[in-house]
Amino acid sequence: MPTSLNLAVIPGDGIGPEVIAEALKVLRAAVDSDVDVAATEYPFGAGHFLETGRILDDADLDALKQHDAILLGAVGGDPRDPRLKGGIIERGLLLKLRFALDHYVNLRPTMLFPSVESPLANPGHVDFVVVREGTEGPYVGNGGAIRVGTPAEVANEISVNTAFGVERLVRFGFETASSRPAKKLTLVHKTNVLVFAGSLWQRTVDRVALEYPDVAVDYLHIDAVTIFLVTNPGRFDTIVTDNLFGDIITDLAAAISGGIGLAASGNINPDGTFPSMFEPVHGSAPDIAGQQKADPTAAILSVALLLEHIGQTDASARVSAAVSADLAARGSTPRSTAQIGDAIAASLTKN
Amino acid sequence: MPTSLNLAVIPGDGIGPEVIAEALKVLRAAVDSDVDVAATEYPFGAGHFLETGRILDDADLDALKQHDAILLGAVGGDPRDPRLKGGIIERGLLLKLRFALDHYVNLRPTMLFPSVESPLANPGHVDFVVVREGTEGPYVGNGGAIRVGTPAEVANEISVNTAFGVERLVRFGFETASSRPAKKLTLVHKTNVLVFAGSLWQRTVDRVALEYPDVAVDYLHIDAVTIFLVTNPGRFDTIVTDNLFGDIITDLAAAISGGIGLAASGNINPDGTFPSMFEPVHGSAPDIAGQQKADPTAAILSVALLLEHIGQTDASARVSAAVSADLAARGSTPRSTAQIGDAIAASLTKN
Ligand SMILES: CC(C)[C@H](C(=O)O)[C@@H](O)C(=O)O
Ligand SMILES: CC(C)[C@H](C(=O)O)[C@@H](O)C(=O)O
Repeated sequence: MPTSLNLAVIPGDGIGPEVIAEALKVLRAAVDSDVDVAATEYPFGAGHFLETGRILDDADLDALKQHDAILLGAVGGDPRDPRLKGGIIERGLLLKLRFALDHYVNLRPTMLFPSVESPLANPGHVDFVVVREGTEGPYVGNGGAIRVGTPAEVANEISVNTAFGVERLVRFGFETASSRPAKKLTLVHKTNVLVFAGSLWQRTVDRVALEYPDVAVDYLHIDAVTIFLVTNPGRFDTIVTDNLFGDIITDLAAAISGGIGLAASGNINPDGTFPSMFEPVHGSAPDIAGQQKADPTAAILSVALLLEHIGQTDASARVSAAVSADLAARGSTPRSTAQIGDAIAASLTKN
Repeated sequence: MPTSLNLAVIPGDGIGPEVIAEALKVLRAAVDSDVDVAATEYPFGAGHFLETGRILDDADLDALKQHDAILLGAVGGDPRDPRLKGGIIERGLLLKLRFALDHYVNLRPTMLFPSVESPLANPGHVDFVVVREGTEGPYVGNGGAIRVGTPAEVANEISVNTAFGVERLVRFGFETASSRPAKKLTLVHKTNVLVFAGSLWQRTVDRVALEYPDVAVDYLHIDAVTIFLVTNPGRFDTIVTDNLFGDIITDLAAAISGGIGLAASGNINPDGTFPSMFEPVHGSAPDIAGQQKADPTAAILSVALLLEHIGQTDASARVSAAVSADLAARGSTPRSTAQIGDAIAASLTKN
């Protein structure tokens, strides 16, 4: 267990800096004197790009690679700004980090805390984790177009899936499933239409499953999953899926469990070759930025994932428990971003 | 308005024949003596394939093309049957029909009938229509794989999007939106990641929008749509989207509005070059087949779409109204498939 943490912090845009301030506060309170936290801030984001014309270059990547882990708030500016068209920040920064740092596991736990309201009338017990592939699929950027702007335009997008990429993700999925009480893994794909990729995913799951006889395995098409997520989310334990399907179902999963204000994620390089990156699932929400209206809970739960990743299991569990207690104690009076962070940090110090 | 209807009927597998029997009953009751309905049955489906080795050949297609419209129940056998692996029936029959008959509009209305329970605690007023592209996207079957079964396997799937295909779909979407009271069109895509296809879709919508100044237009990423579908489905009126995104959100839309037992769809060739095909969104449900347990409502609502398509607007409205009344009158005692069909057909005859 490391006793020092050399953390890169990318607060980003909009509400990013506000939620990151609270996340860091909680991180320091959770590890107290056990871990020496050194946080280096990086200015990357839409704002930085608009000021300097730079998104993320090789030198920036080299600097980030020196860190033990990365904590990211949210990146992205006003979606109507023509200078930010075509997801230039999302792809040039967020996806570039995921690919360059080989974050092949995008880990997104979904938990409906007892005190949190769901939009579902009868959500039941919701506690599952989505193990989303992070470096392949239609996210690889291998599309292209010809005759752009003419009536004869053709625009293609290519989903690339490799045995190498699918197997390492599937193995992580089985490790995750076998460490959980329910020990159930659901592969999500669209094997009846995307037959080549689907076959690779299905064969890989079938093969790796033989090594995990204690894990129950099933399969659902992506369309059917959306039905179960609103009618019986309790049926899920560990979902293993590709980059795009994972993107879609984790937003839905967040919605049924209280909203993206509570959804945390880890972009993980399990091999430890590169630093992993932890970020709330929510975006930069420019409309409420700078007003202390953002809920820092997702960022704080991302800190719990970070602590777990660096082996600080006990501190991680204490952060999750503190969040759970704070959610249970929430009244109808809205608190500021800092008030929520302060309350959670204070409860950790007391323990 | 045609006074005769030369209908092809593909009852299919599982519960298909049961729900189709009721749909035909209601169709005949609705048009009474105004339209002379000739129904020709075709045996296509998983059962037919397992018996004869044939799915759908050119002669079959030629025969189907002679009809005014097609009514399909559900196709697909036991998913664990190795002879049906890889979506062979779905692709060889359902998708083959959609592509060969140029069903470029896959029309899926979503309506929460007043008496129907939603899994959402506060669904609000739900009444929108998804205009899903049916002949392009990742459904084109242009994927491929190399070194299959080895650690060096690469499996690609290609999403093909053409100006031709996107524009005709988008135009249909604007026509649909402008005919509806709310007059609002939402493009759903993932333009920040699938930049080539996304740009084509966005540019096409922007351009066609100029011809429909009365239609309000917005855009949502596919992941964000899943959130709104469970938190505020009332925000939607007409959704325009690609083949795969449409597949995913229409299952979710069905789930929030009472389940796929109520969801109808039309695979439409608006040009009239080929017969359009109407089918419930649900599958063949082999587990309850032959037990008169299936709800024929989705098939009956597909008949309403068929009637609308052939210009029998009044009969179509009466079928929808009869379904709505039947849903409102449903008690807790389950009725058989035929009892539901009989009740709806009888209410149409009485009027
Ligand atoms: C911003 C976007 C590129 C990103 C994604 O699609 O992965 C986001 O939606 C997410 O889920 O982290
Ligand atoms: C059966 C399958 C190929 C089909 C699709 O993906 O379009 C179905 O899910 C649907 O929505 O009609």
